[in-house]
Amino acid sequence: MADSDDKFKRGAELRYSALGDPGERRKELLDALSPDIMRYAITFVWGDVLQRPGLDQKTRELVTLTVAMALGRGREVKNHTRGFLNHGGTKEEVIELLLQIAAYAGFPTMIESTYSVIDALEELGLFDRPAGADAG
Amino acid sequence: MADSDDKFKRGAELRYSALGDPGERRKELLDALSPDIMRYAITFVWGDVLQRPGLDQKTRELVTLTVAMALGRGREVKNHTRGFLNHGGTKEEVIELLLQIAAYAGFPTMIESTYSVIDALEELGLFDRPAGADAG
Amino acid sequence: MADSDDKFKRGAELRYSALGDPGERRKELLDALSPDIMRYAITFVWGDVLQRPGLDQKTRELVTLTVAMALGRGREVKNHTRGFLNHGGTKEEVIELLLQIAAYAGFPTMIESTYSVIDALEELGLFDRPAGADAG
Amino acid sequence: MADSDDKFKRGAELRYSALGDPGERRKELLDALSPDIMRYAITFVWGDVLQRPGLDQKTRELVTLTVAMALGRGREVKNHTRGFLNHGGTKEEVIELLLQIAAYAGFPTMIESTYSVIDALEELGLFDRPAGADAG
Amino acid sequence: MADSDDKFKRGAELRYSALGDPGERRKELLDALSPDIMRYAITFVWGDVLQRPGLDQKTRELVTLTVAMALGRGREVKNHTRGFLNHGGTKEEVIELLLQIAAYAGFPTMIESTYSVIDALEELGLFDRPAGADAG
Amino acid sequence: MADSDDKFKRGAELRYSALGDPGERRKELLDALSPDIMRYAITFVWGDVLQRPGLDQKTRELVTLTVAMALGRGREVKNHTRGFLNHGGTKEEVIELLLQIAAYAGFPTMIESTYSVIDALEELGLFDRPAGADAG
Repeated sequence: MADSDDKFKRGAELRYSALGDPGERRKELLDALSPDIMRYAITFVWGDVLQRPGLDQKTRELVTLTVAMALGRGREVKNHTRGFLNHGGTKEEVIELLLQIAAYAGFPTMIESTYSVIDALEELGLFDRPAGADAG
Repeated sequence: MADSDDKFKRGAELRYSALGDPGERRKELLDALSPDIMRYAITFVWGDVLQRPGLDQKTRELVTLTVAMALGRGREVKNHTRGFLNHGGTKEEVIELLLQIAAYAGFPTMIESTYSVIDALEELGLFDRPAGADAG
Repeated sequence: MADSDDKFKRGAELRYSALGDPGERRKELLDALSPDIMRYAITFVWGDVLQRPGLDQKTRELVTLTVAMALGRGREVKNHTRGFLNHGGTKEEVIELLLQIAAYAGFPTMIESTYSVIDALEELGLFDRPAGADAG
Repeated sequence: MADSDDKFKRGAELRYSALGDPGERRKELLDALSPDIMRYAITFVWGDVLQRPGLDQKTRELVTLTVAMALGRGREVKNHTRGFLNHGGTKEEVIELLLQIAAYAGFPTMIESTYSVIDALEELGLFDRPAGADAG
Repeated sequence: MADSDDKFKRGAELRYSALGDPGERRKELLDALSPDIMRYAITFVWGDVLQRPGLDQKTRELVTLTVAMALGRGREVKNHTRGFLNHGGTKEEVIELLLQIAAYAGFPTMIESTYSVIDALEELGLFDRPAGADAG
Repeated sequence: MADSDDKFKRGAELRYSALGDPGERRKELLDALSPDIMRYAITFVWGDVLQRPGLDQKTRELVTLTVAMALGRGREVKNHTRGFLNHGGTKEEVIELLLQIAAYAGFPTMIESTYSVIDALEELGLFDRPAGADAG
């Protein structure tokens, strides 16, 4: 492994390429609690595990998004929908993923994930919420 | 199995009898992302599995509500509280279910479910939130 | 609530009517670690929550079985398959429940549950494992 | 075990010492649905299990907080962050817990928990949200 | 959607290409309980959702394997390790997936998954268990 | 953070002090699949997160054990029962933890955990299984 400073630096770059400015605003919030929280996330996850050559970044974001959906962790579903799209994934592939989540984790878990996906797509200007539709 | 169009038609009817207009508003939202999502939910779940004769609709809604509570999927707890009541369940039975969830899935999972149940009951005019009580 | 001794007594009776001798053998094992474990289970769960009048025993066993399946707790799926059958449920209803678990908690969770159901049915002489089939 | 009235009384005292006035407002809400819900929580959990001498109250609140985080039950993470601090825990220890949750339950589960911790700390005047940071 | 018979036929073919003879032996077991269980799995999951063009089969098996790992469903981890390898995945990619599971679902969930992966690889002649090592 | 070699070295020592020879045999097995798996576990978890000064080792093992129980990860429940006892915990405290798991994660999750605790205690010569009791 590279040393910690290198891992932090390249991890921060990879993270920014995936999560963009909303990721920076989250980092700012969590750093106000303790800088260690995001330091571990950036050094260990983004700067080490996700940097390994065996899977490409689009596939890795797909895996992350799948775990977040399966466990029902809505904030991460939203963030990694953005990450997946920023790393080459498409809206159509996210829809396929949602259908497969329905089959393998059940329809309620898929429904909850879909609301988080819609939030991400809306922020990115990729979804127009119909007037009068369910707000959540 | 009946063919897909039949299953969709009878599934949509069963779903409407359970979830009512809020279910339609959700369908409108999800259809704007992809019509396939609700098409599978309606054809496979509502139009096929839930149509099988071995359990009555009230019991099936109880099972669905129990799964949603155990997994902590709040939106589905809210929706299927409505579904359970629309298919013959009572508010008193939902309270019994919550107590059994406390025993078998733990008190935090019961507490989260109770907030979703309260949201459903409030929308249905079956619950008056005391002034000054916790808003959630 | 009745006092603790009463609750323990009626809880032990209800538990025996559901779980039978295998339940007694489990109690013997857990009591060797600490008698408090089963004392709470019997007094609070079997002697109090499950004694409440709002849901009948067959429905309560169905709820318990559903929670155990949704959470993937195999031993309890096996035990409460027995409990559900002993309280008036049928093998056909358990199959319906499994299909509904597939829809609401996903196929892998249903598959794992099915193996535990099969173990229970086999012990009860209600299932003949085909020669050469997967042993689990 | 002490009798039910005693357990309720001492349970209510222990609960108030942990959760304070926000806990009372929650109780008021849940009591409006059914007084049985909090009666079981107070009598069985706060008045019996948590009163046992084998672990001190700070350790018990740490265990409760850990379970709530691992299962992703955000309301209880918020409430028991308060409970842990009221029973002698420190903000620094909560941060250590979050890092250990990242390792043992994964970073998305830690992230969700952190937002609930921040909500609790902010209510207690122990956290200043930076202007412009992610609101959640 | 194609009609049910077509979906069953092509679903059974896709399933056999992924799970091979061990999948057939499982089907034989579950069919002895009820042919409906595998009929839904084959028609809905293998014959419909997984047949959709938006994601290739290797990616779909990766998603399935990820869900099974995240939820801790060991039998499906074992089966879909086989499925992933049969659809073009490599042992090295499974190892990368395990490391990513450690980061996103926690080390205990990764450890349990690894035991199931090892079982699958051993059956396929792709892993030699060292003498004296932990048997599980 | 210390550099990777230091973290690995001190992590391996801490891990051995907790998990002992069974931990070594597991490492031997996982290393045969890929040395990276345990390298991350030892460097990141044992060599970094768990080395932080804010919580003592007994408390950290209690947290780990609690997470493993709440998520139903039986192998880690067994291993960290050993770890908790090796770092100053007592059998009586594990029993208290089990009762608290019943309250906060539900009785089925507690029951499964208890079987793993019993396995650990039996290996350590701290539990005698009664003849004729449930074998699991």
